Amino acid sequence: MIILGIDPGLATVGFGVISVDRGRYTVLDYGIVSTPKEDTLPVRLGKLEQGVSTLINTYKPDQVAVEELFFSKNVTTGIAVAEARGVILLTCNKLLGDEVYEYTPNQIKMTITGYGGAEKKQMQLMVQSMLRLKAIPRPDDAADALAVALCHGQVAGMASQFKVR
Amino acid sequence: MIILGIDPGLATVGFGVISVDRGRYTVLDYGIVSTPKEDTLPVRLGKLEQGVSTLINTYKPDQVAVEELFFSKNVTTGIAVAEARGVILLTCNKLLGDEVYEYTPNQIKMTITGYGGAEKKQMQLMVQSMLRLKAIPRPDDAADALAVALCHGQVAGMASQFKVR
Repeated sequence: MIILGIDPGLATVGFGVISVDRGRYTVLDYGIVSTPKEDTLPVRLGKLEQGVSTLINTYKPDQVAVEELFFSKNVTTGIAVAEARGVILLTCNKLLGDEVYEYTPNQIKMTITGYGGAEKKQMQLMVQSMLRLKAIPRPDDAADALAVALCHGQVAGMASQFKVR
Repeated sequence: MIILGIDPGLATVGFGVISVDRGRYTVLDYGIVSTPKEDTLPVRLGKLEQGVSTLINTYKPDQVAVEELFFSKNVTTGIAVAEARGVILLTCNKLLGDEVYEYTPNQIKMTITGYGGAEKKQMQLMVQSMLRLKAIPRPDDAADALAVALCHGQVAGMASQFKVR
């Protein structure tokens, strides 16, 4: 099974693509899709849609996992991220139907480290270890996206084992 | 010129379609597009995209004016509205390119009533009067959308008069 993990944003969307085979994870790709500040918001949203479509068409994931918004102190940034997130969910839904899953930051931390209040560094080390990478994936947004993908891999793996769905 | 005004939301999007001819406004249609709470977020966003596309294809507006988000006390609702708003802007941009305009609630109030802190009722009465309607348009979201459309009509009218753009 191939999973695409997405860490939403307007300026920068992190993505991580992994494959899962009997509980063993392999990284296929990770990185960011970014949109230029000079463009208007509608144009940037169009570029995000294109970027996410290209990722899905390239890697043909079976499922996509998208991080939910944790409302930051910066409300203005938060609005922009939510606007971008809406476009990302729409795009994934169009191309993959029901196979779109959402996880809160706490669920991701809990699933990956066993602790919902885990620090960023601790998360990144777990991502590195689970994917047997030589270094922590960069930039942070890509590492976050791999974490969402891994979280979904764990949850989907447990669900299939116990036939939850 | 035909203007489509949009008051964004996830459960309910208000819309108002007006035509402007030498500073005289005529209402063509107004109402709401709604999405069922039972659907998942990605599915609701897909329905919003369809609804907005249908409006644009039906009325073929020259320009669209979309209200900007004023961050309410309810942050959870605010996130959902922003996600919906992202999809709405994307859809308008796809169908109308650059002809998408954004106005803050304050700009709308200021343009319509001359006072940025105008009350809802006062706004609605101005909308009714400017469009020569027998009653205040219902529901509120539709009246809000007509106000955005009228705001853009006023701004675009002044801009053309002084050749600002």
